Amino acid sequence: MAFLLEGVIDLMIHLNDNERIDQLLSADLEIIQSQEVFCYSLDALMLAHFANIPGRDDRKIVDLCAGNGAVTLLIASQTRSQVLGVERQSRLVDMANRSIILNGMTEQVQMVQHDIRQLDALIKPDSVDLITCNPPYFQVNETNRINPNPYLAIARHEIKLSLEELIFQTARALKMNGSAYFVHRPERFLDLLSLMTKYRLVPKQIQFIYPKKNRPANMLLIHAIKDGKPNGFEVLAPLFIHDEFGNYLPEVHDIIYGSK
Amino acid sequence: MAFLLEGVIDLMIHLNDNERIDQLLSADLEIIQSQEVFCYSLDALMLAHFANIPGRDDRKIVDLCAGNGAVTLLIASQTRSQVLGVERQSRLVDMANRSIILNGMTEQVQMVQHDIRQLDALIKPDSVDLITCNPPYFQVNETNRINPNPYLAIARHEIKLSLEELIFQTARALKMNGSAYFVHRPERFLDLLSLMTKYRLVPKQIQFIYPKKNRPANMLLIHAIKDGKPNGFEVLAPLFIHDEFGNYLPEVHDIIYGSK
Repeated sequence: MAFLLEGVIDLMIHLNDNERIDQLLSADLEIIQSQEVFCYSLDALMLAHFANIPGRDDRKIVDLCAGNGAVTLLIASQTRSQVLGVERQSRLVDMANRSIILNGMTEQVQMVQHDIRQLDALIKPDSVDLITCNPPYFQVNETNRINPNPYLAIARHEIKLSLEELIFQTARALKMNGSAYFVHRPERFLDLLSLMTKYRLVPKQIQFIYPKKNRPANMLLIHAIKDGKPNGFEVLAPLFIHDEFGNYLPEVHDIIYGSK
Repeated sequence: MAFLLEGVIDLMIHLNDNERIDQLLSADLEIIQSQEVFCYSLDALMLAHFANIPGRDDRKIVDLCAGNGAVTLLIASQTRSQVLGVERQSRLVDMANRSIILNGMTEQVQMVQHDIRQLDALIKPDSVDLITCNPPYFQVNETNRINPNPYLAIARHEIKLSLEELIFQTARALKMNGSAYFVHRPERFLDLLSLMTKYRLVPKQIQFIYPKKNRPANMLLIHAIKDGKPNGFEVLAPLFIHDEFGNYLPEVHDIIYGSK
């Protein structure tokens, strides 16, 4: 649809109630969001920035727990390979599909509605080069209050997908030496490592994100390689989000707004 | 020996060839060192600063792989409890014992020559409240060149003590809810975590130390509790050693020189 005038595609895209079109400024992309259903977070931007996406056109890349497609679109903009997003909530798949059209990426990016617990029914084992995932963070137990909004509850809590199911399916889908990139919370770090070890994902790099100086980390990014060698593990330079005045630090500003 | 004039004790202490008396400035302590045998490192200061030492007088505190006693003396200066240092190299035990006399701490601090692989012959199981350890960091394999100096080789490489033997003996000696504090290298982080898990030491806090901004971590400090609850794991604010001009940053300056 490259012959259409700029802005015309926007007019063709249907927006439901309470949906809006936001910018993914770091990559000149547009994305449909809704406060009531799903908005991408800084975590998604961090993950898309952290993952080392090959530019070549012959890789198989999958984004799991794709939500409204923010990570999917951002990684697609870094490669000529096909990118498949997988999301279990059909409402979010619908938003993501309209965002794919909005950005003219229908040839490169596909979003499917699918339960990641049954990923093996969708993707052949040992077939994927790279997987990204921004999963539900929170365990379902007495101390964690579940979000009353069902869309957000499923996106944030392990109601429909446990960390173990996710790691198992990720490891199964990846080729030997394929890469997995996850964003998660430090309080789940020990679980994440022991599950990765259980399912042959060998951690290679980790980066901790701190809200500001002198505060504990509140986010982590991890890169693991399926059947990777156990040596060469690195704890990358830390990243701070805000300075003492609450402003984004330059590196984070660039991740959000681009470095142009 | 409090009736002796200041400086007299120094005169009573025998120094071997190539030994010297250095200051542990952060705690007004003196320590016998030797470039040929052993000098304490920044790692030891970091460990003694990181460990949360109870001030009360009824705790059982042990410093394993005590070397020339830097960590032992530094933690003893933070408590009224007895502190036992354990070191397998008799040459280092001798240096440490003279440093204990030098600092007038013979009533509080004991240093024994003992193989930590046989710690169970020295210390009753489930009897210690707190253990610190700055262990040999490097695995013995083809890629790691062993230091030709045998004193330094044993202190730095897992020739006489593997990480697994250390974790096993630490966990065995600690009481339930006792605390272990280790300093180690990030490349052994995954081994450290899996061994801690194997031997009932539950990691509670970790701090990564970075040589400067934008560099991977080169040191880690970890606090684990024997049979601790699995929740509440924290990645503490990172610590940087040097600024961009190679000067110690204020927090590290205080750890080395004290904050007086």
